Amino acid sequence: MSKKSDFSEWYNEVIEKSNMIDKRYPVKGMNIWLPQGWNLMLNIDSYIRKEMEAFNYEEVYFPLLIPETEFNKEKEHIKGFNDEVYWATRAGNNELDIKLLLRPTSETAMYPIFSEWIRSHTNLPLKIFQIVNTFRYETKQTRAFVRVREIHFFEAHTCHESYESAENEIQTELEIMKKVANAISIPYVVCKRPDWDKFPGAVYSLGIDTFMGGRTLQIGSIHQYGQNFSKAYGISFEDKDGTWKYAYQTTYGMSERLVGAIVGVHGDDLGLIVPPSVSPCQVVIVPIYNKTTEQKIKEESKMLFELLKSHGIRVKVDDRDITPGNKFYYWEQLGVPIRLEIGEKEVTKGEYKIKIRVNNEARFIKKSDILQNPYKLFSEIFSEISFIMYKKAKEEFDKSFIDAQDFKEMKEKEGMFKVQWCGDENCAKSMEEQTGMKLLGTLYGHNEAKGKCLLCGKESKDILVYAKSF
Amino acid sequence: MSKKSDFSEWYNEVIEKSNMIDKRYPVKGMNIWLPQGWNLMLNIDSYIRKEMEAFNYEEVYFPLLIPETEFNKEKEHIKGFNDEVYWATRAGNNELDIKLLLRPTSETAMYPIFSEWIRSHTNLPLKIFQIVNTFRYETKQTRAFVRVREIHFFEAHTCHESYESAENEIQTELEIMKKVANAISIPYVVCKRPDWDKFPGAVYSLGIDTFMGGRTLQIGSIHQYGQNFSKAYGISFEDKDGTWKYAYQTTYGMSERLVGAIVGVHGDDLGLIVPPSVSPCQVVIVPIYNKTTEQKIKEESKMLFELLKSHGIRVKVDDRDITPGNKFYYWEQLGVPIRLEIGEKEVTKGEYKIKIRVNNEARFIKKSDILQNPYKLFSEIFSEISFIMYKKAKEEFDKSFIDAQDFKEMKEKEGMFKVQWCGDENCAKSMEEQTGMKLLGTLYGHNEAKGKCLLCGKESKDILVYAKSF
Repeated sequence: MSKKSDFSEWYNEVIEKSNMIDKRYPVKGMNIWLPQGWNLMLNIDSYIRKEMEAFNYEEVYFPLLIPETEFNKEKEHIKGFNDEVYWATRAGNNELDIKLLLRPTSETAMYPIFSEWIRSHTNLPLKIFQIVNTFRYETKQTRAFVRVREIHFFEAHTCHESYESAENEIQTELEIMKKVANAISIPYVVCKRPDWDKFPGAVYSLGIDTFMGGRTLQIGSIHQYGQNFSKAYGISFEDKDGTWKYAYQTTYGMSERLVGAIVGVHGDDLGLIVPPSVSPCQVVIVPIYNKTTEQKIKEESKMLFELLKSHGIRVKVDDRDITPGNKFYYWEQLGVPIRLEIGEKEVTKGEYKIKIRVNNEARFIKKSDILQNPYKLFSEIFSEISFIMYKKAKEEFDKSFIDAQDFKEMKEKEGMFKVQWCGDENCAKSMEEQTGMKLLGTLYGHNEAKGKCLLCGKESKDILVYAKSF
Repeated sequence: MSKKSDFSEWYNEVIEKSNMIDKRYPVKGMNIWLPQGWNLMLNIDSYIRKEMEAFNYEEVYFPLLIPETEFNKEKEHIKGFNDEVYWATRAGNNELDIKLLLRPTSETAMYPIFSEWIRSHTNLPLKIFQIVNTFRYETKQTRAFVRVREIHFFEAHTCHESYESAENEIQTELEIMKKVANAISIPYVVCKRPDWDKFPGAVYSLGIDTFMGGRTLQIGSIHQYGQNFSKAYGISFEDKDGTWKYAYQTTYGMSERLVGAIVGVHGDDLGLIVPPSVSPCQVVIVPIYNKTTEQKIKEESKMLFELLKSHGIRVKVDDRDITPGNKFYYWEQLGVPIRLEIGEKEVTKGEYKIKIRVNNEARFIKKSDILQNPYKLFSEIFSEISFIMYKKAKEEFDKSFIDAQDFKEMKEKEGMFKVQWCGDENCAKSMEEQTGMKLLGTLYGHNEAKGKCLLCGKESKDILVYAKSF
């Protein structure tokens, strides 16, 4: 199992061995989430919920099925999704009068109602989100967590009085994205997508991409809708000065791709490596005993398990009747951040051995220190592990983020390439064709233009980022 | 708004005023969950998750869409659902080769894979659950939380080596049901459904019903499947003695009807009354001030808010610019368990006034007591409130649970009627027709037979329960 030599094969194998999903469900692109994978996803959801609440978003749930009539109101949007929506056309023995689509995203479910909710500037800003299943009939090759047909999806929708206020919200959304990515130690780059690749109906789109296996993976997206949707759906309000205006809107989306990123960015040839913040199991206790010591060691393991559990640490004891070596191997594949070994020596010395998954480091922890304040002690180690994971991932990411010198280099090396650009759309598209790479857009938030356009040689005005992408 | 005189109208009005859902979604029977309702549902889910984990169930997520081919494997089951499933027949511009149904429940999604997971007795018991959206094309009149077309649904599925082991699991499931119902102070009765009303494919079905507005509401169901499904889906295992056997299965279901029960059982003419265990807001602080005292009182409110929040209490401050009376009214409608008032007098005396929603009782709490251990103090009041709510609901429930003396009484009174029964199916069905009531089944777990069958006069062998039902 080698991540370097064949990422795709490695990715599938890591997932297979980590018990996160079962791919044998008889519909293409729809997988069964097993407890190991689903609990990881739910832990990520919990983290997101906490952050959304802190930033004054409220959680809602809109129906899955959207009437064709509502969907048809926004033309740009339909064009973007028409080829990939599932349609419910029958119920029981009846053909439905109005066909219902399974949401690919919820603009067209939400916005007709927003126009009822919003009447006055005092109703603004409106800031909501939901965590739901969405559906896209992907025609490209499917890949677990990365390209699936039923997607575990997060979507935030906001309405504002002014374009500026919507712009400010986008900064907040970037702030939340940063916190979520940091919590799972995932580095990323924010690009403003080119106009021809923005979200259907958006004024502009920001893509948040991480990098794994030589390709970028979009793990989040933020859109400035301006008044495009509000005009189509009649979301207007009476402003302070008595005039009626259409609201300005933004959206922010993430998905189960966050799990895909954890697999692809952190994993190694032994298997998964899961960030402690979201790992379904943070510490696995492995008792090591023979017939004489069995009872004593099992009791000590039980005691420690109960103690850690009661302090809110997600802990397991592996007391299966297999060799310690097999247990080590098993939990390494699953990516549990810390293994804690309890054997005869450990009990006698009052000192446990822990093994840290990400860097294979062994440490010894005094039992007395654990007893004193287990939560604090382990929280500190978790923070440290997160930092190590981030540092490792960031180094890899930075190494792959290359200032392009020529097209030859772009074709030979694996990476994301910053390319000097004159500002002409033709140059941008032409470079996409020449390199066979995808244009992620312009670097968002900072302009590093210097020198000359890599294609035409005119003065550079901005930086484009190109990469192969999932 | 009178619960007594017109329950249906009252129920709709309470929901309307409590901001739990928006009914204006343009598909019949599909409502929008607003933050107030959705957070209540999520809190119930959290409680259920905690209990399921304690009883060694693992959480999974199976795809929503089920191929027609899998669905067709269990004939009884299809017969029961065929008239009420939604079908996805198209994706993009293509007709699907194999039609996909939107799960009405997940037996036919899960069991083909169970046959892969289960090979040996060492794979048993298998105990999983999921919390998902399910779909039923209801033709009867829809009612918020009670009869909807997209249902927020909980389903547990287990597989066992023997019928006895499956029977034991049913006792565990009843235990969990009891804990969930207790947590939301809802009284209920368990009946074994008559054979002609059991779940499609089950050996027998237990219905868990509460009572509100003169009708029973099924809030949970537990099914013994025996080997009916395992034979259809080939779920077999090699037993200790080397023989191959089909697994024995149970399921346990609950849904958003738990929210419906909270509304209908606890609510009063002022509005909702939400159990503190699951209320999105447990304590609302209402500052009462004039221009002179405004700053001081707002600061005190803020201080208390931060304190309670930091101790894990779900608390809000209502600092809107409306009269205290309007605020009181507003939070009463929403059913927040405790209102805490802070005015000039309260600050001076170091003593806050609280008002308990369920019985309108006023109390005074010393600020110093709150500061000392806010979590303990409020937890105790929450427990007390839960107990009062349960007692009140149980009295009402017991009063409505009537030993039927004759059919006339059953037609005149509102209630659930225990009827002596000879054991003949014809008598049971005939009484259903005569009274216009639904037969819930036989009282489960205790036999109170005495005297004579209410219809034919032969010796009573068991008790039947009849009621009008939602």
